[in-house]
Amino acid sequence: MKTKLETLALKTEEKQQLINITSKVREAVGSSGIRNGFIGLFSQHTTAALLVSEFQNALLDDIHGFLGRIVEDDRAYRHNSPEFSDCDRKNAASHLRILLFNYSVVLPVCEGELVLGQFQSVILAEMDGPRERSLKVQFIGQ
Amino acid sequence: MKTKLETLALKTEEKQQLINITSKVREAVGSSGIRNGFIGLFSQHTTAALLVSEFQNALLDDIHGFLGRIVEDDRAYRHNSPEFSDCDRKNAASHLRILLFNYSVVLPVCEGELVLGQFQSVILAEMDGPRERSLKVQFIGQ
Amino acid sequence: MKTKLETLALKTEEKQQLINITSKVREAVGSSGIRNGFIGLFSQHTTAALLVSEFQNALLDDIHGFLGRIVEDDRAYRHNSPEFSDCDRKNAASHLRILLFNYSVVLPVCEGELVLGQFQSVILAEMDGPRERSLKVQFIGQ
Repeated sequence: MKTKLETLALKTEEKQQLINITSKVREAVGSSGIRNGFIGLFSQHTTAALLVSEFQNALLDDIHGFLGRIVEDDRAYRHNSPEFSDCDRKNAASHLRILLFNYSVVLPVCEGELVLGQFQSVILAEMDGPRERSLKVQFIGQ
Repeated sequence: MKTKLETLALKTEEKQQLINITSKVREAVGSSGIRNGFIGLFSQHTTAALLVSEFQNALLDDIHGFLGRIVEDDRAYRHNSPEFSDCDRKNAASHLRILLFNYSVVLPVCEGELVLGQFQSVILAEMDGPRERSLKVQFIGQ
Repeated sequence: MKTKLETLALKTEEKQQLINITSKVREAVGSSGIRNGFIGLFSQHTTAALLVSEFQNALLDDIHGFLGRIVEDDRAYRHNSPEFSDCDRKNAASHLRILLFNYSVVLPVCEGELVLGQFQSVILAEMDGPRERSLKVQFIGQ
């Protein structure tokens, strides 16, 4: 049994962006030497998270629209108020939208291949970019 | 240490359905030969996911009601428009509701038994059925 | 490869409360004897769950506000009706709010240390307290 921890650095380009990282995850699996086990991806951030979903432009637009409807940008959030918070980014909406995504994603690896359904992609959900982001990538298996 | 990957096939019967799969998961644990470790369940779909919750009819009705309120069926989603999407299923609402559930569930196995709280069930959340669905089931342990 | 299952008992003090349990998780990692692998935390409850987020009072207030807006307390939920449910707690809103959190959290352990980003905390999300709660804590690694 082997474990292996790596860091995957990612650069985001927009305030709110959904980025397909499936090919990077497949590369990490390929170079890991793990044939069978799990790969875990772990966001190291509180306004960027992960998602397994279909990566289609029209659907991504719908996800952004949904996020904007359930978490309004212009509400009087305490996290955005200098009276209650020392955070200058005024990113309360980013933090709340993250609740819809996952801090981490664990995926199976079988015979050296990432196991994903036909329409599934691994997606980084940037909610407060643009920024340099990093994911920890942990393998466990043999 | 052993790993083992299986497929669990499931048939759903309604457009939107919450299905208790706990007994199937217990069976998979029983026949796995794993005594201590993790079992991971991984949806291979983008409109069917997983949930660990109480399985009570009245609560299931409330969950369906909640899903209908936060994601309306009749909005002008881009994913449902032939102008922006080649998907004929017009299932944008299904994709958005999936955000409330989990692509995967990892559960502990101890002394050959699935570890779950008294009121917890493992539930398949079908958001765009009826369909044939499959879960990958990955064990890691000894 | 070793696995190890423990129970972490927690006492909550409010109806709805977000509790920083990061130091307890670090203690569990320290005493586990696992140097490299995963720690999984598993709620044994259906109205208490887990979250990895920033633990800042102003942001916690915003999360509580958001939960109250997307799941109203005073709606005619079936789970709260003696006609449809034998649950006396009238806690349908608690069950629905849990959908925003995670039944479980898996985190990497590297060189004996819990791997978390600078602003990340592991948080217990109590949605129907005050109660005695317990998490199962499962390690896998070496």
